[in-house]
Amino acid sequence: MVKKVRISTLGPEGTFSHEVALKYNKNADVVFANTIRDVFESVAQENADFGIVPVENSIAGTIGQTLDFLTLFKLKIKSEIVLPISHNLVGFCDINKIKILYLHPQTYEQCELFIKNNTPKAEIILTPSNGKSAEMLANSKDKNDASIIPKNAADIYNLKVLKRDVQDRNDNVTRFFVIAKIDNERTGHDKTSIAVHPRHDMPGLLYGILGEFAKGTINLTKIESRPSKGKLGDYIFYMDLEGHKTDKHIAKSLKNIKKYASVTILGSYPRKY
Amino acid sequence: MVKKVRISTLGPEGTFSHEVALKYNKNADVVFANTIRDVFESVAQENADFGIVPVENSIAGTIGQTLDFLTLFKLKIKSEIVLPISHNLVGFCDINKIKILYLHPQTYEQCELFIKNNTPKAEIILTPSNGKSAEMLANSKDKNDASIIPKNAADIYNLKVLKRDVQDRNDNVTRFFVIAKIDNERTGHDKTSIAVHPRHDMPGLLYGILGEFAKGTINLTKIESRPSKGKLGDYIFYMDLEGHKTDKHIAKSLKNIKKYASVTILGSYPRKY
Repeated sequence: MVKKVRISTLGPEGTFSHEVALKYNKNADVVFANTIRDVFESVAQENADFGIVPVENSIAGTIGQTLDFLTLFKLKIKSEIVLPISHNLVGFCDINKIKILYLHPQTYEQCELFIKNNTPKAEIILTPSNGKSAEMLANSKDKNDASIIPKNAADIYNLKVLKRDVQDRNDNVTRFFVIAKIDNERTGHDKTSIAVHPRHDMPGLLYGILGEFAKGTINLTKIESRPSKGKLGDYIFYMDLEGHKTDKHIAKSLKNIKKYASVTILGSYPRKY
Repeated sequence: MVKKVRISTLGPEGTFSHEVALKYNKNADVVFANTIRDVFESVAQENADFGIVPVENSIAGTIGQTLDFLTLFKLKIKSEIVLPISHNLVGFCDINKIKILYLHPQTYEQCELFIKNNTPKAEIILTPSNGKSAEMLANSKDKNDASIIPKNAADIYNLKVLKRDVQDRNDNVTRFFVIAKIDNERTGHDKTSIAVHPRHDMPGLLYGILGEFAKGTINLTKIESRPSKGKLGDYIFYMDLEGHKTDKHIAKSLKNIKKYASVTILGSYPRKY
């Protein structure tokens, strides 16, 4: 008997992360975690072969904890997956009678104008995941409760969709990482994510680092700062580069920037956009 | 009779934003808002003279919505204020008997390890503000409910502190902006915040921009990317520079980078750290 692949992801069932897990491997055993930290832990402790974590949404921006945990848990990025995000208002009453809305904070940020314009008087109860929003509404006894959730979650919990596509922009997408103990082989169309820890507070440090990439004609597709967790104003920079860590020009630039900063390679993986 | 200054901030009373409002002007009329967007709206619509908004925490990182709304509402940064953040576990029972925790998402991120190690089985109910966490606990009838809130909120709602300083790091601070219709005069020890909207997807664009600042020997104290809200991978860069927008070398650099990007000056204000 072949052992099934185990994928850890944010639960309960019906989250966008769950959808991505099934997209990555539809025959996998999906193990649900309560928090993003728990997803990392289950892969680090080998209770799962892969983890699915959100890293960035085209409206709400980066999920900072995911970047922090990539450094903390020393896991690798195996793959990136971009999922179109469509939110659905579900409930038991007319939209203008909604009194309570169960919402994941990311969903709230992505539907803020819709909520302000359509249910301005509803009390908002934040939830730890879109799956949990669906579960809480399904368990609710109040006819005036509602929620905004993925279509999958509405199906799983048998909730009536009052209005489709209530996100504030239709081109809303979220980028997820597949995390694992090892990253991916070179495919020729790759991306490499790195964390850059500046050696000290040097003026022009970032300019120097970008200069090395410019010399190697390496395209930077993303740069993000995260607090070092020490003094306010001390940052770690997360960067995505076009190319694989084994490509000669990438390897050379990564070696050259060591005069400015210590570098952690978070993974090389096939480029999807 | 002198008209009192009106300050809008995230409520209800007892939030860290409330504490900053009183620190900024202890005689002000504080107007409480439900969301960060509402704080911006009340200043834009002149229902308040100033607004207090959190912009960055030394553990949890940047509050992205604050950056987005600075651009959207065309208001100015009048001042920055850094507040040491101490979180307190409050409740009615022994720590090991806690079943429900009311938590603001930022508080959750700043106390994540404490919660994991001390109340691993507690159900977490997220709230829109630390003041709301306190209010929900004060209204709760269940002896096993608890929350993590500022000391001020514990005093205001008369809640018993079970454990002080439960944040995961003791050097936890949050930086706030005072927003207004106009920014600040030059003091000689200033900072300027800008939003940089790249003209197109030009390789080396960021390198070129940083090069202009290097030429002007301008120190960059922060750089942050935010989604443009369009295509995934299109960003707006938020930067903090040392100096006032009227300083000659700043004004010259800002003019020079227009070949790469359009620039919005979000404000010049006295530098506090």
